[in-house]
Amino acid sequence: MKTVPHRLLLAYRGEDFFGWQRQDPDPTVQLALETAFQKIFNHPVAVAGSGRTDRHVHALGQVASCEIPPLHPPATLVKALNFHLPPGVRVLSIRREKPGFHARFSAKGKTYLYRIANTDPLHPLEIGRAWHVPRPLNLPLMRQAAKVLTGKHDFASFTSNPGYERKSTTRHIRSIQIVKKKSGVLELTFDGNGFLYRMVRNLVGALAKVGQGRLSPADLKKILKARSRTGAPPTAPAEGLYLASVKY
Amino acid sequence: MKTVPHRLLLAYRGEDFFGWQRQDPDPTVQLALETAFQKIFNHPVAVAGSGRTDRHVHALGQVASCEIPPLHPPATLVKALNFHLPPGVRVLSIRREKPGFHARFSAKGKTYLYRIANTDPLHPLEIGRAWHVPRPLNLPLMRQAAKVLTGKHDFASFTSNPGYERKSTTRHIRSIQIVKKKSGVLELTFDGNGFLYRMVRNLVGALAKVGQGRLSPADLKKILKARSRTGAPPTAPAEGLYLASVKY
Repeated sequence: MKTVPHRLLLAYRGEDFFGWQRQDPDPTVQLALETAFQKIFNHPVAVAGSGRTDRHVHALGQVASCEIPPLHPPATLVKALNFHLPPGVRVLSIRREKPGFHARFSAKGKTYLYRIANTDPLHPLEIGRAWHVPRPLNLPLMRQAAKVLTGKHDFASFTSNPGYERKSTTRHIRSIQIVKKKSGVLELTFDGNGFLYRMVRNLVGALAKVGQGRLSPADLKKILKARSRTGAPPTAPAEGLYLASVKY
Repeated sequence: MKTVPHRLLLAYRGEDFFGWQRQDPDPTVQLALETAFQKIFNHPVAVAGSGRTDRHVHALGQVASCEIPPLHPPATLVKALNFHLPPGVRVLSIRREKPGFHARFSAKGKTYLYRIANTDPLHPLEIGRAWHVPRPLNLPLMRQAAKVLTGKHDFASFTSNPGYERKSTTRHIRSIQIVKKKSGVLELTFDGNGFLYRMVRNLVGALAKVGQGRLSPADLKKILKARSRTGAPPTAPAEGLYLASVKY
């Protein structure tokens, strides 16, 4: 039967999964989706994500694509999938796409949110939802450092596995916004044309060091220019990271 | 040794506890606190809450009191308690009080927040944090109904166990605010001089019926006047309820 590309908008709770990518028999988002499709269509359906997310990383707007026969109206398919999926992942909407659409290869950009609970103690409702940094961070310094990172750069210093990137380690960060909420949570929003493996968590680890006064914005510039992970600050934890949206 | 009343400001995550009140060996907030105090003072300390909260109910600003020797500066005691407490409950601050202070008997009023996730599907990050009501609720009708409930009334129709209330079932609700967030979550804030057992959850159950068009504000007035739980709408689930603050 003729198949049509479908685009799925997804939200999931990081702690419920061993990340996006299938590594059976661990519970992963990809396995949950492919199992739900199998139940509906009675044959295997391959689901591609816009990118992998690690274990404990949340998604507010992950996008996936698959090729399926256009048997069901999208709204019906949303309900059928959610019926079969565990509650930790939800299909928010589905739309049919033109031939050739692929969640990963068609993506034009992504937005990530990273939440730092800059309070002492950590509020219990933030467990698993933010990185706990008890000592006050210097926001003006962090914003200065964010300017150093904004723009088109080779981000080799901020990828945990350069071998994973087949082509270039150059990416364009369009903007980094840092906002402090009344609750004491810092929300860092990264908007870019694409991100390397663990790049956002590595950038946040570096920005936090600047906020602690243990690294200057000028030091960060040197680390960026070095194009090497050696000597770069450690990775920020997964539970503060949210894949917010993907642009096509 | 001379003891002084201390006031503790607390936050906890509902799903981590079998409610406030000790019922050993179940994990309760009171047990966690009394165990932490025992570890610090090497003798039993009785901790009183401003009121009980049920299993799965969250607290943003529960208040507890206890009589302890003024051995430690309050900030040091906060750190010591949090060191011994499980992460699902945190002491936010401690202050010394005048003789006679008691978290329950000195309380002048309380504020509760109730969150309804009025979206379809339920966002995974709202699991355990809100009551999921998928069909759109009529806010103007709910606000009309909230006006019926505001003021000084006998709320016998909205307590799950009238025998539990030793004296009167009359309470004064100062205000009920209903706000819809961009996320589709309704936040209902109840401010009053006190609340009966399960009163907020019973009021929310009734307001939701009005929002669904299955009960009119006039019907609600009749239910209130009847002063009987029989015929009143069902209780809303615990996981949407947050004890926001206690006034003294």
